[in-house]
Amino acid sequence: MYAPGDVRVEQRPDPEIIEPTDTIIRLSATCVCGSDLWLWRGIDFDDQPTPMGHEYVGVVEEVGDEVHTIKPGQFVIGSFFASDNTCPICRNGYQSRCAHVEYVGAGGAQAEYLRVPLADGTLVATSEMPSDDLVPDLLAASDVLGTGWFGAVAADVQPGNIVAVVGDGAVGLLAILAAKQLGAERIVAMSRHEPRQQLARQFGATDIVTERGDEGVARIKDLTDGYGAHSVIEAVGTQESMMQAIRATRPGGHVGYVGVCHEVQLPGQELFYAEVHLLGGPAPVRRFLPELIRLIESREISPGKVFDLTLPLDETAEGYRAMDERRAIKALLRP
Amino acid sequence: MYAPGDVRVEQRPDPEIIEPTDTIIRLSATCVCGSDLWLWRGIDFDDQPTPMGHEYVGVVEEVGDEVHTIKPGQFVIGSFFASDNTCPICRNGYQSRCAHVEYVGAGGAQAEYLRVPLADGTLVATSEMPSDDLVPDLLAASDVLGTGWFGAVAADVQPGNIVAVVGDGAVGLLAILAAKQLGAERIVAMSRHEPRQQLARQFGATDIVTERGDEGVARIKDLTDGYGAHSVIEAVGTQESMMQAIRATRPGGHVGYVGVCHEVQLPGQELFYAEVHLLGGPAPVRRFLPELIRLIESREISPGKVFDLTLPLDETAEGYRAMDERRAIKALLRP
Repeated sequence: MYAPGDVRVEQRPDPEIIEPTDTIIRLSATCVCGSDLWLWRGIDFDDQPTPMGHEYVGVVEEVGDEVHTIKPGQFVIGSFFASDNTCPICRNGYQSRCAHVEYVGAGGAQAEYLRVPLADGTLVATSEMPSDDLVPDLLAASDVLGTGWFGAVAADVQPGNIVAVVGDGAVGLLAILAAKQLGAERIVAMSRHEPRQQLARQFGATDIVTERGDEGVARIKDLTDGYGAHSVIEAVGTQESMMQAIRATRPGGHVGYVGVCHEVQLPGQELFYAEVHLLGGPAPVRRFLPELIRLIESREISPGKVFDLTLPLDETAEGYRAMDERRAIKALLRP
Repeated sequence: MYAPGDVRVEQRPDPEIIEPTDTIIRLSATCVCGSDLWLWRGIDFDDQPTPMGHEYVGVVEEVGDEVHTIKPGQFVIGSFFASDNTCPICRNGYQSRCAHVEYVGAGGAQAEYLRVPLADGTLVATSEMPSDDLVPDLLAASDVLGTGWFGAVAADVQPGNIVAVVGDGAVGLLAILAAKQLGAERIVAMSRHEPRQQLARQFGATDIVTERGDEGVARIKDLTDGYGAHSVIEAVGTQESMMQAIRATRPGGHVGYVGVCHEVQLPGQELFYAEVHLLGGPAPVRRFLPELIRLIESREISPGKVFDLTLPLDETAEGYRAMDERRAIKALLRP
């Protein structure tokens, strides 16, 4: 990305092993993330050309001398954050805040090859080379599915619960899928876009609420005997969406927030009297990968449905445009 | 309280049964709360004379027609919030946000008699008439112990954990006692007041940190291999103390905040990347009362030590002054 709205695909040197714990993978697929759109729209872009992309699946080409469990030829999936998976933070399930965390997207995953640090801790291999139709599902696990899943876990979704999901992007939609898998009885999708409502229902939404803000909160209260939802997953990251999530949650309930917060200020006093659990942040996708891969390989879930546009890598810019204009939920790129 | 700094003890009509679920209790002891001091200092005082006090233990004098489990003559303890203890919010343990919640202190517990609504849901009776020396311990359970305990539970204190406590008022000190009871291995009291440090150690603190703000956070990091505490209990309610608590917690750790938030704004982006669990609010003391009473009756805990000043009810104003000037941790009043 050279500037907001200016994404170019160009030839760059292939990435190389730098640390002995690195690996190089040849990408089978990559994609454009909702968080990439913030930069496309001029928010957080830091005024110099930046390699883009942090979602990836592919085949291991080369491993460093200290990579022991990941082998060349394996099909692997990893998160946007590399993690050693052995420090106390990782062992407690927060690999996104690993003591040695490294951003995998630094070199840009919207590419043919990618260097992944801390390979043994970061990557999970599939049980066999996946058939081509499973690649989008596995790619979704790299971020949007893992992030939606973390949202549902952070919101403490339990069997029998009433869950509301704020946001109908890929993460919000896959949070619905996660809530369904975790046994939620009733799942309310907050969405005003017809094609996304349809996908929400396919993933397990039982109710659709089109209202936003305080009106949206009032509708959730109506659906829950006035108490609010047990669990609310926030997948947008704005002041309005955060307050909508907090206010739609019953006292003692849980908010899981995975939309990257932009200029959000939470009023302490309202939060105090709301008395809801709050947990969010960059998803520790690594924690969930083995289970997500199992569910995908057994075809119990089809998270790849969020990719409603597939483009060759050369047309990456069109993927950004289509998502920015909401013509596409999520664009898959084939290197 | 007629105005900030102006508390008067005067004769008022005895409270009466209004609802059939009410009870009237004759107070054995009451006290001044840290939250009362906000008003004494002119914060949140709403410019009209207000009955004060919301902490109480005493003997049931009279019960309404629909009170079935609480009986005249019983020695009882209750929280500052009356709760039916049967609604879904109560059954989930958040009695402070009961669907029929009512503030018990409306009539003022710094008095000889108090009307307690929803008696069966709100009050817990001791197993027998307590000896006089247990009265301060039982009074502490009404708020400060219950609140400190909730702070420790909200901060998910687990056996073997490293816990930090921000705030050395009665609630902070009793949060230390709670953390100890819940099995914390190491408890860091953040306090710069010598007499309070001593009580902190008696209650179970293993380390004292006198620094505040970012320096205090750095000390906690030093004590925890750079990771931060597993659990941090916030018992002040200011911007500085909340940020200190959040920053002293390791990723994936828990902040339990029970200081009533005043003009606090939590920055969403920092909170997102901190990736800590956050839970706080008015403590659902009722949830913990049976266990707290058991621990007190068996003399396993002595939370009443936080009362370092005892006054007759007539001298209530001196209790406020002594606490405001930090000459006393907490003033017990004998009607």
